[in-house]
Amino acid sequence: MSQILPQYLMLPGPTPLPQAVLQALSGPMINHRGPEFAELFREIEAGLKWVFQTQHRVLMLTGSGTTGMEAALTNLFSPGDKVLALSNGSFGERFGQMAEIYGLEVERLAYEWGEIVSPQALSARLEADTQKQIKAVLVVHNETSAGVLNPLRELSEIISRHGALSIVDAISSLTSTPVQMDEWQLDVVLGASQKGLMVPPGLAFVALSPKAWVAHRSAELPRFSLDFSVTLEYAEQGWTPWTPPISIFHGLRVALAMMREEGLEAIQARHLLLRNTAREGLEQLGLRLMIENPDHASCSVTPVYPPEGLSADLIRSHLHQHYNMVLGGGQRKLTGQIFRIGHLGYQFQPTIWAVLQALEAALSQLQKS
Amino acid sequence: MSQILPQYLMLPGPTPLPQAVLQALSGPMINHRGPEFAELFREIEAGLKWVFQTQHRVLMLTGSGTTGMEAALTNLFSPGDKVLALSNGSFGERFGQMAEIYGLEVERLAYEWGEIVSPQALSARLEADTQKQIKAVLVVHNETSAGVLNPLRELSEIISRHGALSIVDAISSLTSTPVQMDEWQLDVVLGASQKGLMVPPGLAFVALSPKAWVAHRSAELPRFSLDFSVTLEYAEQGWTPWTPPISIFHGLRVALAMMREEGLEAIQARHLLLRNTAREGLEQLGLRLMIENPDHASCSVTPVYPPEGLSADLIRSHLHQHYNMVLGGGQRKLTGQIFRIGHLGYQFQPTIWAVLQALEAALSQLQKS
Repeated sequence: MSQILPQYLMLPGPTPLPQAVLQALSGPMINHRGPEFAELFREIEAGLKWVFQTQHRVLMLTGSGTTGMEAALTNLFSPGDKVLALSNGSFGERFGQMAEIYGLEVERLAYEWGEIVSPQALSARLEADTQKQIKAVLVVHNETSAGVLNPLRELSEIISRHGALSIVDAISSLTSTPVQMDEWQLDVVLGASQKGLMVPPGLAFVALSPKAWVAHRSAELPRFSLDFSVTLEYAEQGWTPWTPPISIFHGLRVALAMMREEGLEAIQARHLLLRNTAREGLEQLGLRLMIENPDHASCSVTPVYPPEGLSADLIRSHLHQHYNMVLGGGQRKLTGQIFRIGHLGYQFQPTIWAVLQALEAALSQLQKS
Repeated sequence: MSQILPQYLMLPGPTPLPQAVLQALSGPMINHRGPEFAELFREIEAGLKWVFQTQHRVLMLTGSGTTGMEAALTNLFSPGDKVLALSNGSFGERFGQMAEIYGLEVERLAYEWGEIVSPQALSARLEADTQKQIKAVLVVHNETSAGVLNPLRELSEIISRHGALSIVDAISSLTSTPVQMDEWQLDVVLGASQKGLMVPPGLAFVALSPKAWVAHRSAELPRFSLDFSVTLEYAEQGWTPWTPPISIFHGLRVALAMMREEGLEAIQARHLLLRNTAREGLEQLGLRLMIENPDHASCSVTPVYPPEGLSADLIRSHLHQHYNMVLGGGQRKLTGQIFRIGHLGYQFQPTIWAVLQALEAALSQLQKS
């Protein structure tokens, strides 16, 4: 913060924000029970429906992405309900763990971190569930910890055929890669403000299909401030049940207008370019990508191994110290093993080039010393 | 929002904010797992300890005041635990209702909205609980819905003597009126950013005594993102377990610096002056105050009855339309019965004078028509 050099915040969230969004955060406090807030709310909800590609209502909850995941569990299930948790990284593991804490019966379909979830295996497992004991499948679309993008459309088709609910963590994939809630028949889609949406952290988003709303009506887990029925009741008036983070709403209005101007397909194409630029550049530096198959590689974050003999965290701290660039580290069992270049939200090709160039310089300096 | 006239936001939260706080919200996104955030976190936590008048850690949770209340319940109790809910307004009623949803056994000590909770009655009830079945007493310090300030210090002394935990919603009283967590031996104190702290909504605060931490260790209600142990573990590193609302942290740093400069006693004296100015002015207009006894009257919000034959909501909409002043309405069973002048946070005597003058003009205009 004390440096003159601008910061390159290359994380998969929080992401750098457009100046216009930052300025909008300074908008005045307004009555959250008045018509001005309702107007803001409705404009934002319309924008979110467009981002989610859905006709369904998108609920807004104060919190982080984790808040949305937890709300989905407590609002859709009763103790003892069985769910299948797909897992190929830290967030998938945690989603299952969260369900266990709430007394659900959790079966896991787990893969090495960085492998994609296999549609064939999911299909086989769900076909064997002839008694329809599996109520829902928990899917992480983009597994940020491992930089892997799961084949959501295929997975959703299989889940729909079985009849279970699909509960999709699209927190780090929304906007950077296609998420077509209605066309792909997703039942619950979760998002958060500080990822591809170019807004500060503080809001979680949950959209539900009619089938998910039916499941909600009979779900018995206790909940209060994140209750979907209460949230829906207030949303119909353009309000939230509890005092909302008004500043983030001001920012989100501006960010959504910017996204509409760029267009969803253009945003996705830009992220694909960022990913490809990062991958090609890293390979040219002789580094080994964690996700070899480009079809499985995230458009939000690219994880990579350090060269033999150099620590990933040393590279990160060198980049921070000398060039004011903040890269992601490895999470949990990957701590110190990899580093991750986030390229999500308000990011452009020149930034990636700058990071790659700085990385080349850092590697050369560190290998000499 | 489209008016040229500046808005007078006279609610008991969200409150108007100092320009310096609004500007600080535009600070850049930073890595919430880096040293810069830890520095911000530690500076803010030190400021909050001063606001709460405590040596204990103050946990910060993304959410509203309701989030903090809910977290206190899920982190301190097991199903079937018995609590005594003191209630003399909407927030007290809701705190008890929330506890019931989580399977606690809730006994109520309930008063008419606007009467204070009687220390004598609490004392009698707790003395009769010789088996110590009551694990905790839920206290709303300032009952915003009715503009009444409960005698927290006396209530806390009685609760301490019994041995139950005191769980205090100080959300709308912190800074406007004394709250001495350590000296008064309060066990759990709850706050929120958008009240007397001059910050936008988005953060809830929870401070716990060592006795409350002991209760937490054996509490079996399920929780995930609001778990106090996980929050504590991260707080020790200067972080939050999940992505925090970074902008609100930027604003809170500035607001706390302003509060330190004014001084806690001066802030409380200013609120007392605002309350007295409002009460005297309303009486001079011939209006009937809801809280007759000044010793019971809130320093954050003043509720008042409209004159005979005029609707409270008509007065509010007239003030909004003609003078861009937003006053609070009556909540739940008081809807349409009263209006409330919030005077909390960044508020000063001239503003109250302006509101009173506008009110005089509005009453005269409405009574003529």
